[in-house]
Amino acid sequence: MNATPHVVIIGGGFGGLEVARRLRRAAVRVTLVDRHNYHLFQPLLYQVATGGLSPANIATPLRAIVRNQANCEVLMAEVTGFDVGANKVRLADGELNYDVLVVAAGATHSYFGRNDWEPLAPGLKTLADAAHIRRRIYLAFEAAERELDAEARKAFLTFVVVGGGPTGVELAGALSEIARHTLKHDFRHINPEDARIMVVEAAPHILAHYPEELCTRAAEKVRKLGIEIHTHTKVAEITPDHVRLASDDGETVVRTKTVLWGAGVQASPLGKQLTDACGLETDRAGHLPVSDRLAVAGHDNIFAIGDIATCLGSDGKPLPGLASVAVQQGKYVADAIGSRGKSSEAIKPFVYNDKGTMATIGRAAAVAQIGKRQFCGFFAWLLWLFVHLMLIVQFQNRLLILIQWAWSYATFNRSNRIITGETPVVVEKHPSDDPTKIA
Amino acid sequence: MNATPHVVIIGGGFGGLEVARRLRRAAVRVTLVDRHNYHLFQPLLYQVATGGLSPANIATPLRAIVRNQANCEVLMAEVTGFDVGANKVRLADGELNYDVLVVAAGATHSYFGRNDWEPLAPGLKTLADAAHIRRRIYLAFEAAERELDAEARKAFLTFVVVGGGPTGVELAGALSEIARHTLKHDFRHINPEDARIMVVEAAPHILAHYPEELCTRAAEKVRKLGIEIHTHTKVAEITPDHVRLASDDGETVVRTKTVLWGAGVQASPLGKQLTDACGLETDRAGHLPVSDRLAVAGHDNIFAIGDIATCLGSDGKPLPGLASVAVQQGKYVADAIGSRGKSSEAIKPFVYNDKGTMATIGRAAAVAQIGKRQFCGFFAWLLWLFVHLMLIVQFQNRLLILIQWAWSYATFNRSNRIITGETPVVVEKHPSDDPTKIA
Repeated sequence: MNATPHVVIIGGGFGGLEVARRLRRAAVRVTLVDRHNYHLFQPLLYQVATGGLSPANIATPLRAIVRNQANCEVLMAEVTGFDVGANKVRLADGELNYDVLVVAAGATHSYFGRNDWEPLAPGLKTLADAAHIRRRIYLAFEAAERELDAEARKAFLTFVVVGGGPTGVELAGALSEIARHTLKHDFRHINPEDARIMVVEAAPHILAHYPEELCTRAAEKVRKLGIEIHTHTKVAEITPDHVRLASDDGETVVRTKTVLWGAGVQASPLGKQLTDACGLETDRAGHLPVSDRLAVAGHDNIFAIGDIATCLGSDGKPLPGLASVAVQQGKYVADAIGSRGKSSEAIKPFVYNDKGTMATIGRAAAVAQIGKRQFCGFFAWLLWLFVHLMLIVQFQNRLLILIQWAWSYATFNRSNRIITGETPVVVEKHPSDDPTKIA
Repeated sequence: MNATPHVVIIGGGFGGLEVARRLRRAAVRVTLVDRHNYHLFQPLLYQVATGGLSPANIATPLRAIVRNQANCEVLMAEVTGFDVGANKVRLADGELNYDVLVVAAGATHSYFGRNDWEPLAPGLKTLADAAHIRRRIYLAFEAAERELDAEARKAFLTFVVVGGGPTGVELAGALSEIARHTLKHDFRHINPEDARIMVVEAAPHILAHYPEELCTRAAEKVRKLGIEIHTHTKVAEITPDHVRLASDDGETVVRTKTVLWGAGVQASPLGKQLTDACGLETDRAGHLPVSDRLAVAGHDNIFAIGDIATCLGSDGKPLPGLASVAVQQGKYVADAIGSRGKSSEAIKPFVYNDKGTMATIGRAAAVAQIGKRQFCGFFAWLLWLFVHLMLIVQFQNRLLILIQWAWSYATFNRSNRIITGETPVVVEKHPSDDPTKIA
């Protein structure tokens, strides 16, 4: 009996989902494995972390997405390893045979060897991260309101964002909006506008992937939001109460209770698991090396796409970790799987078609590079909004997000700034016992 | 110096918030204390627990609500006790002096002495409860999909709701909608419609607070949703794998992985703390006894309102635990505080004006009693919808909720059914290894 080939896809992100959907008419059966039961629209995760959107606004159940695709099933499970000799994926609670394997497990934070910083400076990759960061941000304002000591209050109102890439800049921009607009009238003993927001970047520019002129204009806009930019600066130490920053001018200690990590990413640990299983080596950030056909060396039935893989672009440099790269790779791999055995023609290598990149830098401002054209400001933001709304066109949340944004934009409100979870606030004494302090 | 009197309100629910807002023009300063930074619209909590709404849709930051009320400040803190002799509230991290105290700390679950059932059969009072119940419900379907043993699969697909009051019936109705509509096409190895949903009620009727004729019609509607109603039935045992039910016909063991608790409520533990501090006694469910002026006996500067207090109605029975009771009591107490010392006229006792009660019983059906008029079905549901939307008119979320509902209603979708948190799913083997099982 010649059974239908079984394609196992690990990861329901942009890449994995694209492969699954593109295989809907192929003569294969597809199992999409993910630890979570939802696809996460990561470009808007910073909005959840800062209270602009609800988790469900940017997460769509995987089962709902492929519900009408009869040849696809979803498996909510944790992958723990691979047995490439036996064509098996090991799960925390079982195993799975495959004929073709697509690994699209994405990336996680990298603390550059300082994993002890992780609890002190949370990164932003998952909904749990976003909930944690949201709690940290709003609890810091609550604690500042109750703090009597001026220096300690300042520490609660100081926010240090490590990393001047898109994530760091988006977080800092949203923090500025929270402090200057959202919370403006909410407190009686502090002025949220006193919040100090710092972006720390080791490179000479923030948003260093963009052309220098665009970086400079973006930095101006960011500074106008009241955000301090510290380039050429590295983080030497993070403690619960301060960060120590090192630059050419020497070291500075900044008292802060909230440090957010937007500095480094590395491939999911599954990258290393798979290269070990295949007898290969990952690069320094744990990425899987793949051929120009996106297959893992020596295994033409194993593909790796998206942030977990290192794929070289036409300029010889690794492609960036963008949704559009993962989606194009997903389409390519689905085509390759669909045409397996159909013809003996050589499949053309994967070529990334760069349609441009963009990042928001706070309220109604963004930078965008589309081909040779560069935009910075409101028009770039409109572009960003349009592209991102179109990207989630396939999901039902688009209308809700648009309304929520429109509302937030008009009112400076962040309706999602509720604090959930169990982190305690501990401060010595409550200032309202001193009647002179009431506004 | 004759300082402005300080009114401390404990609890930002319907009662406490009403007091704070009604005091906006009074010559007092108000401190509103809550463990959370939000007001929770509890009547819709079951929608969050079943994935119909996001937490932020029914939670509004307290600071945002009173932002323009200059004489009111919000304090996010945990109250741990009282020193009524010194007019002090003890906090986990400080203390607070008051001239007038309003205790509106609400209620929590009662397991009737079986607190060991709490982790096995979660109740629904907080957003954390709702997130936990949501995770339990959707993980049960995920586990059933992967379970090979037929009996074990049935246990994952059996949902037992303890208590046939409004919360229990609302939960059961939403579960039925999830099984019969929302998840209809989502699985490949199970049919979610096979889910067995049981409501267990010790009394002779579900929704026993309503007139008998209305109960009977409601029970018919509930049964039409495929829900089993077991009246005259008590829960004798709850384990992770089954419940043992006791009725006049003897005992039955039902295998189930999901038991939800909607049976009993008791006053917040602060009720007992305050009665102890005042040298009084609570009733069996921990409620604070109050005078017909809503004051605690012997302390005319301490009021208790809402679910934490026992207030007798004109029929001599305790008033029910409804938002409308708490709101009317809040208005009464605010008036009493506002007119303190102004005139020596005797303040009239509090009288509850019963405008009616209503409860939903699944998709587009509800029961309502308005004065002597009774409604059951679609019209009652429209009434319910209208009243609840009007009730949240003061908060910004109304429009979003309406749109989300309209969308869910039209599509049977529950966009919020994402599973967050860390509960593991553990099942032996994955059925998709057996190709004959693929639909």
